[in-house]
Amino acid sequence: MVKNLNALYSKNALNMKRSEIRELLKVTRQPNIISFAGGLPSPETFPVKDLEDISCQILREKGAMALQYGPTEGETPLREEIAKWLSREKPGIKPENILITSGSQQGLDIISKVFIDPNDAVVMEIPTYIGGIQAFTAYRAKMIGIPQDDEGMRTDLLEEALTKLAWKNKKPKLIYVVPDFQNPSGITMTLERRKKLLQLAHKHEIPILEDSPYRDLRYSGEPIPAIYSLDTQNQVIALGTFSKLLCPGLRLAWIMAPTEWMDRMIVAKQSMDLCSCTYTQLIIAEYLKRELLPKQIENIRKVYGRKLEVMIDALERFMPKGVKWSKPDGGLFLWVKLPKRMSANDLFPKAIENKVAYVIGSAFHCDGKGQNTMRINFSYSTEQQIEEGIQRLAKMIRENM
Amino acid sequence: MVKNLNALYSKNALNMKRSEIRELLKVTRQPNIISFAGGLPSPETFPVKDLEDISCQILREKGAMALQYGPTEGETPLREEIAKWLSREKPGIKPENILITSGSQQGLDIISKVFIDPNDAVVMEIPTYIGGIQAFTAYRAKMIGIPQDDEGMRTDLLEEALTKLAWKNKKPKLIYVVPDFQNPSGITMTLERRKKLLQLAHKHEIPILEDSPYRDLRYSGEPIPAIYSLDTQNQVIALGTFSKLLCPGLRLAWIMAPTEWMDRMIVAKQSMDLCSCTYTQLIIAEYLKRELLPKQIENIRKVYGRKLEVMIDALERFMPKGVKWSKPDGGLFLWVKLPKRMSANDLFPKAIENKVAYVIGSAFHCDGKGQNTMRINFSYSTEQQIEEGIQRLAKMIRENM
Repeated sequence: MVKNLNALYSKNALNMKRSEIRELLKVTRQPNIISFAGGLPSPETFPVKDLEDISCQILREKGAMALQYGPTEGETPLREEIAKWLSREKPGIKPENILITSGSQQGLDIISKVFIDPNDAVVMEIPTYIGGIQAFTAYRAKMIGIPQDDEGMRTDLLEEALTKLAWKNKKPKLIYVVPDFQNPSGITMTLERRKKLLQLAHKHEIPILEDSPYRDLRYSGEPIPAIYSLDTQNQVIALGTFSKLLCPGLRLAWIMAPTEWMDRMIVAKQSMDLCSCTYTQLIIAEYLKRELLPKQIENIRKVYGRKLEVMIDALERFMPKGVKWSKPDGGLFLWVKLPKRMSANDLFPKAIENKVAYVIGSAFHCDGKGQNTMRINFSYSTEQQIEEGIQRLAKMIRENM
Repeated sequence: MVKNLNALYSKNALNMKRSEIRELLKVTRQPNIISFAGGLPSPETFPVKDLEDISCQILREKGAMALQYGPTEGETPLREEIAKWLSREKPGIKPENILITSGSQQGLDIISKVFIDPNDAVVMEIPTYIGGIQAFTAYRAKMIGIPQDDEGMRTDLLEEALTKLAWKNKKPKLIYVVPDFQNPSGITMTLERRKKLLQLAHKHEIPILEDSPYRDLRYSGEPIPAIYSLDTQNQVIALGTFSKLLCPGLRLAWIMAPTEWMDRMIVAKQSMDLCSCTYTQLIIAEYLKRELLPKQIENIRKVYGRKLEVMIDALERFMPKGVKWSKPDGGLFLWVKLPKRMSANDLFPKAIENKVAYVIGSAFHCDGKGQNTMRINFSYSTEQQIEEGIQRLAKMIRENM
């Protein structure tokens, strides 16, 4: 019997945090709870019939290939289709720039593994995606948070932070941003900020990690160029995923990176899982080849755009004064700010009593702050649930003011 | 532009090695080459029709669930079926002991991540599975190789090594073994050695990592109990996979571990990919539920057992004196030893010229030795190719003696 278990674990393992969201989600699965807590896409948007047709066809026609090992970098037809898709935004992207991953979370893990030694600095927005925080934490990165405002990461504060670090002869390994309809805040980085971010990254020679799972889910306003499409110095690594465009259950996503970084990432992935699932890669490659994605995205936009409207409308009708929220142009999330003295963490059990759930905003803060904030999801619940849920939430907040 | 790329990479990334096998495989894809190099199962054994039926049914009946995110630890029906399957060998295994992974390689990565700090020692057989070496290398483990003989790892030498380490107050984090029809050697560890290994592991309080992808592929001789089934102290973590029993392309495998270690592994997997593919998990769960696996295994045994016979027969007929090979009772690989002064590495280009390929044995040696050895696979080629390929190999070796 091993008596001292902790002596066995690696320092990285001892540093890892269980996702607070995943823990909360367990509570929110109780019956009758209206949950705005998860980040789940709505199953009504899954193109089940198309995927069924394609899945059956692949096994019928290419069974031996679909069930065999494939190349670590991913199936060529899928890499080609993704390169084509991304070339809409930046011409010249090649299959060699694409590494297929098992979800964007694996992309975050691969990049962390390749770039981060313990105590290396990673710059990120406050708040930011919890999966990013988790991946960096698992490699004991030092996280440097830069506050956001309505225009995205405060690049003036980023400049200050980088300059200060440079005085100490230090340099972050990565600048991590979620520029489009950010999870959790819903904020989109303006064009001006994107340009300033690139300028700083170029000056200090720091790679930018652009994580943009919701980029194509815009319901209002005009698209803003992806950071990678503005980059002239081969300094942006971009993460994209099919989880929010098609469905998350097939676990397929990609890293797009300059070729000079690709090799290390492929070697890392070799040691991590040899290759991603061949079958599901061929399914999505065929789905893309049939050019079904644009219509699918149009459909999702319609469904989620409508849900967002319903939620904003309900917030305006029911929330007491002093509560504020973001009005995102896309994505899956709204960000709610309670009056400063209120704590979304303390209110959580009361929300559950009132049969409504959210995620505490502090979980997205690498500095542990944001106690008065919450993330609420509008993609998963029905329109009726959204209205009822916001009403419950508003009542509970009003009673605790 | 980032000028100094190497300054960006983590120490772990700089330590990683590209798999020599994967590189060799590229060469071996040339037309007309008979390749004994890969470790690919034969597509003729894939139960394509059954998987097609089940895949279509799952999307038809449970599309919304199959395409959604699932729990990090894996889909409950699959964990239940695996626990039931493993309980044949050790009653009482529960779904809570099972963590679903994307291939056994992810199991190796998760365990390395959870247990290994740089310079931590890991004990392993010489030679051993290259994917194990790769995973440990990616965490900068110090690898301690213990030679094998025909009965498996030399536990007398293991005892010496552990005692010496204990004098220095040091203790390996893991003892990694591939006890059944080992990749690459084909050797199976005897019952006596298994017991001795457990006794040493218990005495020194070191977890055993039992990696046994071929366990059910026995073509002759009597089964020997799995190490985990002999363990009385909750000290064995076992890796199993569907890659060799069903097909590798679905990328599904499992870690079976004592519950007290499970939590850390789940948290690690959360940060690595959130969860494995829901769709393929449900496919395999249904396949197991229909009790199709025993017949499938019987079929594989027949096909591979016959191929092994053909290969042994060809080796006996064609190989020059001085060349030796293992006679495995199962698995996918034979191990060939050339006379000491010959180098399988030097001969490799000549083999390719002669349109036959193998993997150099030194790739499986954590100490870089084994230059006179090669691994040859008998599962992938047809019986005719096996005979012809061994003839080519024998001719080339004879000419270079």
